[in-house]
Amino acid sequence: VGKATAARTLDAGHALGLVAGRLACAEAVRLAREHGVGVVSVRNSNHFGAAAVYTLEMARQGAIGLALTNSDALVAPFGGVRPLFGTNPISFAAPGEGDEGVCADFATSQVSYSRVKHYRSQGLPLEPGWAVTGMGEDGEISALKPLGGHKGQGLAMMVEILCPLLAGMPFDHELSHLYGEPYDQPRQVAHLFLAFDPGAFLDAAAFRASVSRLMRLVREQPPAVPGEGVRVPGDPEEECAARRRVEGIPLTADELAAFRRIEEETGQVEKP
Amino acid sequence: VGKATAARTLDAGHALGLVAGRLACAEAVRLAREHGVGVVSVRNSNHFGAAAVYTLEMARQGAIGLALTNSDALVAPFGGVRPLFGTNPISFAAPGEGDEGVCADFATSQVSYSRVKHYRSQGLPLEPGWAVTGMGEDGEISALKPLGGHKGQGLAMMVEILCPLLAGMPFDHELSHLYGEPYDQPRQVAHLFLAFDPGAFLDAAAFRASVSRLMRLVREQPPAVPGEGVRVPGDPEEECAARRRVEGIPLTADELAAFRRIEEETGQVEKP
Repeated sequence: VGKATAARTLDAGHALGLVAGRLACAEAVRLAREHGVGVVSVRNSNHFGAAAVYTLEMARQGAIGLALTNSDALVAPFGGVRPLFGTNPISFAAPGEGDEGVCADFATSQVSYSRVKHYRSQGLPLEPGWAVTGMGEDGEISALKPLGGHKGQGLAMMVEILCPLLAGMPFDHELSHLYGEPYDQPRQVAHLFLAFDPGAFLDAAAFRASVSRLMRLVREQPPAVPGEGVRVPGDPEEECAARRRVEGIPLTADELAAFRRIEEETGQVEKP
Repeated sequence: VGKATAARTLDAGHALGLVAGRLACAEAVRLAREHGVGVVSVRNSNHFGAAAVYTLEMARQGAIGLALTNSDALVAPFGGVRPLFGTNPISFAAPGEGDEGVCADFATSQVSYSRVKHYRSQGLPLEPGWAVTGMGEDGEISALKPLGGHKGQGLAMMVEILCPLLAGMPFDHELSHLYGEPYDQPRQVAHLFLAFDPGAFLDAAAFRASVSRLMRLVREQPPAVPGEGVRVPGDPEEECAARRRVEGIPLTADELAAFRRIEEETGQVEKP
């Protein structure tokens, strides 16, 4: 332990996951520049927000980036009924020409827990691949199902092995829930950041040009539903961000009331 | 190019993918032992068989292994109708205690092309997430659909970026088909092998014990269907191999006839 040159472990000391994540992701890029590939395992951390934050940053630095994290158990194994795995997201990003790039970020469950809860609250039927529901009349949700069945279970286990097992942290189902007691105990979440330097394999500019060519090719594909274009991972988020820069961020009445309350309580007001 | 210490490119010179794959996978493990992580990109290769061959070998050597390869286009992007991506499989393996370990190996399409063809030949209906079918009366299969929708497209693009784009090879849709003319042209398939040395992050024996603990935990999960156990990726293949070691390998009449024909033509007979 400690002799490796392209692999590091960072002990976050129970810091905010966002702080630990930014540090670890910068270190992974630094290692990749020196060794062609760099990996940083993070222990004793917390929820790090959206995984794409880190892979987009790695891509901005010219690296191909992967960011993985475990989380508390919500997903049953394939053919199981009880939550055993976190939604254990995977984000991948690669730089294209200029500012553009591909960025995928997805949970290894078929759908998110918030989607299932939203459908339930609206009385809409759940699709069979989404969740395990209880036997009772209320059919409460017991667990989410893994992405595409056994394949998603494989991805969830890959993330669990590369994050908490490689960092010597508790298993997904041993983590306390993000929104639940005890709030005064360390959660011991684990992450993994992996960066590749394209320039270690081929001419970096040629690589970036090929990523942009792939992006154009995807967007030019004929769609199944006329008018609904085929998109590159990251496109929907880019479109949403561009729209909100012009129109602002829509808030529900509840959210607006919460902001008003914070404003009153703290006296902090910032207006554009 | 060339200065990186933990990343290499191997030009397979149009050799059999199985030969190139074995060499590259051994080199990835060697790099991981020295640097904590090792990556080998392979260019100018051919079909390398099952990706699990390489990750199982990496796990046998005590490493966590990932093996990716691109292939000729069969899979449409999410919302598209034409094949653009190969089935671009991902295999992941990690060593447990003794001989045991986890090994997942799956295409980034929802199901395999052979499954779709088999269902079609039996007149069985395809599930909606499996394939794009043509508009004609025969409803011929235009393309496979990606695993779980847009998430599978993200995985397919990740494999395309990490394999042919990082190796400077043609895109998936530019590859000639595996079973189709021209057979006298190089196919220029690309692979990526990634190995992690658990001992660079924590005590290797403790890591392997935790993988075995995770495997036991998964197998002990209550099943949704009584009698149908929950399994670890690799368990179905292990069970099948154990059964066939005792009972032999079942052959269809066509397969048996083909073997008889080869026997007659070559005079080569090997009996147990």
